Amino acid sequence: MEFTINRSAFIKQLTDVQRAISSKTTIPILTGIKVVLTASGLLLTGSDADVSIETFLSVEDESNNLTIESTGEIVLPARFFSEIVKKLPQDTFSLTVTDGYQTEITSGSASFNINGLDANNYPHLPEIDTDDNLIFSGSILKQIISQTVIAVSNQESRPILTGVHFVIENGEFLAVATDSHRLSQRKITLEGANDAKYDVIIPGKSLVELSRMIDDSNPDIEMRISENQVLFILGNTSFYSRLLEGNYPDTSRLIPNESATGIEFSAPKLLSAIERASLLSHESRNNVVKLAINAAEQKVVIYSNSPDVGNVEEALEFSNLSGNDLEISFNPDYMKDALRSFGQTEIKVAFTQPLRPFTLVPTEDTTQFIQLITPVRTF
Amino acid sequence: MEFTINRSAFIKQLTDVQRAISSKTTIPILTGIKVVLTASGLLLTGSDADVSIETFLSVEDESNNLTIESTGEIVLPARFFSEIVKKLPQDTFSLTVTDGYQTEITSGSASFNINGLDANNYPHLPEIDTDDNLIFSGSILKQIISQTVIAVSNQESRPILTGVHFVIENGEFLAVATDSHRLSQRKITLEGANDAKYDVIIPGKSLVELSRMIDDSNPDIEMRISENQVLFILGNTSFYSRLLEGNYPDTSRLIPNESATGIEFSAPKLLSAIERASLLSHESRNNVVKLAINAAEQKVVIYSNSPDVGNVEEALEFSNLSGNDLEISFNPDYMKDALRSFGQTEIKVAFTQPLRPFTLVPTEDTTQFIQLITPVRTF
Repeated sequence: MEFTINRSAFIKQLTDVQRAISSKTTIPILTGIKVVLTASGLLLTGSDADVSIETFLSVEDESNNLTIESTGEIVLPARFFSEIVKKLPQDTFSLTVTDGYQTEITSGSASFNINGLDANNYPHLPEIDTDDNLIFSGSILKQIISQTVIAVSNQESRPILTGVHFVIENGEFLAVATDSHRLSQRKITLEGANDAKYDVIIPGKSLVELSRMIDDSNPDIEMRISENQVLFILGNTSFYSRLLEGNYPDTSRLIPNESATGIEFSAPKLLSAIERASLLSHESRNNVVKLAINAAEQKVVIYSNSPDVGNVEEALEFSNLSGNDLEISFNPDYMKDALRSFGQTEIKVAFTQPLRPFTLVPTEDTTQFIQLITPVRTF
Repeated sequence: MEFTINRSAFIKQLTDVQRAISSKTTIPILTGIKVVLTASGLLLTGSDADVSIETFLSVEDESNNLTIESTGEIVLPARFFSEIVKKLPQDTFSLTVTDGYQTEITSGSASFNINGLDANNYPHLPEIDTDDNLIFSGSILKQIISQTVIAVSNQESRPILTGVHFVIENGEFLAVATDSHRLSQRKITLEGANDAKYDVIIPGKSLVELSRMIDDSNPDIEMRISENQVLFILGNTSFYSRLLEGNYPDTSRLIPNESATGIEFSAPKLLSAIERASLLSHESRNNVVKLAINAAEQKVVIYSNSPDVGNVEEALEFSNLSGNDLEISFNPDYMKDALRSFGQTEIKVAFTQPLRPFTLVPTEDTTQFIQLITPVRTF
């Protein structure tokens, strides 16, 4: 194998593939990156067995400046190879597999010789045996991921809750996640997906990595689902993730249908007030803030205290307060995550009882996106 | 005590004072910040017993927007107080010491009550019993610190080497540091200091903190020295550091007077090549790179290798190579630190023998700034 390539084009693809590679893997060859050169171009593969990423640098893409002397394949130590390529002196570099798996990397007057591994020992990628696909706008998919992964559980005791539940049916796409203390749910209409019917659970960690790869250069993303794998195709890059096995709990019955108290807030202003209150709650053993709603006086006050450090209270700005008086306590960190997911919008918060979950929705569109938080008993 | 003040002006000064405060202190009150309000303004003090920083917000400075209701003093938990002030909603905030040491901090509709401590229990600052001073340009002092602290030892086995040796004599200022493997020395002429004579050792850590406080708004810095303390005055801020006790070793005899081989390099280009070579040396047990100089062939090559990973070699760009052939090995991390301290300049490297220290100086001015590195024996 011998080729010359543009260094910055190569680094860009290498960085994406490296997302899949973990130094903590128990399979030594997976600390490496697989480099396969054919007459049509260069294929890079990285994997941690859960997520695999494959990207292709075509000989026909002039920005790659790819010159092929001879084809072949090799596995190179990923971290080290990437550090070398990033520090090389010139705009292009050459890579030659010489004796056995010895690999020479040259650029200008710098020449590295590193030990590679036999690519035949690299595990095979999962196979997706379907051409059925769904098309997402990159920016929408990125938004859906960011809105739902916040509620994914990081406890391995119920592995199924470490994933996001994707349900596609009747041309509608629903993503929901819950760690049993809070829940995030987003719905969209999926153009041209009327016949599609899927029900899968994708690990939250995989979606976070996928989301990091989505930028403005990925207008559309293709999703293909097989029995135990999902594949996302972003331009020249394929992102594979295993699916979580099992049945996701029925979350629809968790969302209350009616409310006893409703208030509207500016999401960023409420976020600032919660951040202030959480300074105190974080110093306390139980990390709780209290909201006191007085409908008659049209007053909403947030409280928190730590016996060692002190206390805080703040009268909140709001609009359209209606319904019953209420005192409710909750974990401010769940509230902060939820409020950040709304960005700079107005939101409507709906309560039923002090110990029943409450919901946050955008005032503009109250059905497509919902955040739910379970309160904390403080007495 | 009761006052109102501009929040951003206060935060700026608070940030400086916090540099002195360590959460690891064994004296609990030193995790606090001392706030003293007199009719002329607000004095903030932070200390870790080695370094103390004091800053003054004058009632006469309009940008402070300081309104004084009643004077007094209090010690507040530094980290927590600073987090509160940074998150307050309005441009100004009020602070009132109420019952005992209870302190109320209000801004807009947010109100914090935190527990303070009696300021009488806060240790007294060191006293500097001299008016003799030396004046440094802020940018020069910052440069001198960055050029010398790199060679300070971080081993407590020889505490004296954890400091930078400042010698002022005959209108000349000399700063030198060595960890016994390398040495950095900088000299400048100090205007109006003909009568001054000092010989002190300032902890490297103190100088690093001082350096972080120097920005473009500190054109001149005043330095005062007493028996066991040094004081730097930057505008309204006073920076105190204890001095290290003992005699600094005589470093002048370490610097060779003659050389057998001389070469000139571009500092940034040599730095890039050393960075590449160190990728390999860092994977190896002894972290060494080798330089081979061939005067007859006018060739300089750098090598490094790691038995596990591979090897690298690179022919270097240079000019004005003269003298004997040489093979010399050294720690590339010392070389990187030294080269970074020269910035974008041309440097001259002078060698005597493979196991004797070599020196780096700017080609433009070979006497005011010198970096010395001791080679490593590899056979």
